[in-house]
Amino acid sequence: MSMDDVEGSLTDFETHLNEVADRVTVVLDRLIAPAEGPEAQLMRAMRYAALATGKRLRPFYVLQLGTLFDAPETSLLRTAAALECVHTYSLIHDDLPCMDDDDFRRGQPTVHKHFDEATAVLAGDALLTLAFEILADRDTHADGHIRCKLVEKLARASGAQGMVGGQMIDMLSGDIRQDLNSITRMQRLKTGALIAYAGEAACILGGANETERHAIQGFTHDLGLAYQISDDLLDVEGDVETLGKDTGKDAEAGKANFVSLLGVEGARQRVRLLATQAKEHLAIFRNRAHLLLQSVDFVLDRRK
Amino acid sequence: MSMDDVEGSLTDFETHLNEVADRVTVVLDRLIAPAEGPEAQLMRAMRYAALATGKRLRPFYVLQLGTLFDAPETSLLRTAAALECVHTYSLIHDDLPCMDDDDFRRGQPTVHKHFDEATAVLAGDALLTLAFEILADRDTHADGHIRCKLVEKLARASGAQGMVGGQMIDMLSGDIRQDLNSITRMQRLKTGALIAYAGEAACILGGANETERHAIQGFTHDLGLAYQISDDLLDVEGDVETLGKDTGKDAEAGKANFVSLLGVEGARQRVRLLATQAKEHLAIFRNRAHLLLQSVDFVLDRRK
Repeated sequence: MSMDDVEGSLTDFETHLNEVADRVTVVLDRLIAPAEGPEAQLMRAMRYAALATGKRLRPFYVLQLGTLFDAPETSLLRTAAALECVHTYSLIHDDLPCMDDDDFRRGQPTVHKHFDEATAVLAGDALLTLAFEILADRDTHADGHIRCKLVEKLARASGAQGMVGGQMIDMLSGDIRQDLNSITRMQRLKTGALIAYAGEAACILGGANETERHAIQGFTHDLGLAYQISDDLLDVEGDVETLGKDTGKDAEAGKANFVSLLGVEGARQRVRLLATQAKEHLAIFRNRAHLLLQSVDFVLDRRK
Repeated sequence: MSMDDVEGSLTDFETHLNEVADRVTVVLDRLIAPAEGPEAQLMRAMRYAALATGKRLRPFYVLQLGTLFDAPETSLLRTAAALECVHTYSLIHDDLPCMDDDDFRRGQPTVHKHFDEATAVLAGDALLTLAFEILADRDTHADGHIRCKLVEKLARASGAQGMVGGQMIDMLSGDIRQDLNSITRMQRLKTGALIAYAGEAACILGGANETERHAIQGFTHDLGLAYQISDDLLDVEGDVETLGKDTGKDAEAGKANFVSLLGVEGARQRVRLLATQAKEHLAIFRNRAHLLLQSVDFVLDRRK
């Protein structure tokens, strides 16, 4: 395969990724309907954050991993939308002045900058709540046990033992000596848990067997970690225009991250190793996984 | 019945209310387990807020209304605990400096005062998330459809079309001319929705018929509104020692409330009228509702 072929296939992949993002945005647009009356500002803020341009990577993985098992499309789309609501809420709250204090996100002013802090807190709360409403609704799947599994796993992935726990550790990490183990654990909770949920949801909706489930767990685990390391590389190397968010935040806050602990070259090597591992997990799915394999390279080279 | 009998029965009622509160606290204590490691602060903050002394009125109504239908006790207790998690999260977020900026709650410093703002945001987020995890867990009920109904209704009651929507309206109400209709609507969302959920959950778990459901909807509607009006009366008449929270906030913020619109005597009359109405809804349950009837007087005379 020549370099041209590789570039060609990445472009096809991007087209596909954008298509998925558009479809998820349509679902979100319907689920977060504009409101009349004095609470209209709340819905405006929810829509401002959730409908902003994003790659919709987590939804992409719900859909693409679910397609391995021919899981029902409506179920996948609604679950993907719910997951994106949780991701969006976490960005809104993480950006607050009392947290990471960020001014830009997804290429636009953060919610508390564009509206105000109270609206940002409430819009985050409402998006988190909406995620569970979407999943529990009969439209997501006819089987109540399956819907409950989706709710329970999302709650675990995003709560105190998952994403929120990771964010708490991150907030306190200025005071705590950080080594590679503690950073890895923090990131597994803070960003890894929601990526892992994309895989779990796909397995639940697709009726995956144990072998398939383990393969997907391995894939999302390695991908999630690689994603975070490449994010730390971007924090050092990127600029705010390309990323649509502030950079150099960790160094500024005196926080350790993968790059400060491994060095730039060590971090790059780790990303490559994890990328290879992630792809190997998908070998059992053969050709059906080809878009997933492409996604690994795309996700880990995010300056493209 | 002499006055002594009435006082006697109120004391019995208080004993019963305290027993229910203790049982719910035991469930919460088990569900919000202390954690080791750097995220321990998150669980400490969740426990600080959720295990603080409270009357546990919403849990009381889940249990007491569910008992009308002999609904399974474990289901009721777990649902009551989930509802209390949502109520507690809403208090933590409402007390934040960017919201109502309160220093005291349930007789102790608010979470952002005792810990810090970031911890308060995250502890609220985690308690909201935990509520849905509790409801979706098989321990709450064997039937997945019933668990999903509990999740969906709680999400609706607490989200943008419910409690959070009401809080948004309240935050903006300094800028908006408030009449009795708009205040009533705001309160129906902000505090009424969770009280109504206590009734809905009891009906779901108890398999209530349409007549019973309407009766309970009427009861929680009138009770919720009466509760809010009596809260506004306390805001004018109470003091911080008795209430365990700041008073005179509405007047200070220049906000209209039921007392400023109806006057003290008008507000008191409205409470009495709603209390009578609330009790009438329960007539179909005859003697089985006697603790519920007592609860109305207790709840609406909260200086006792």
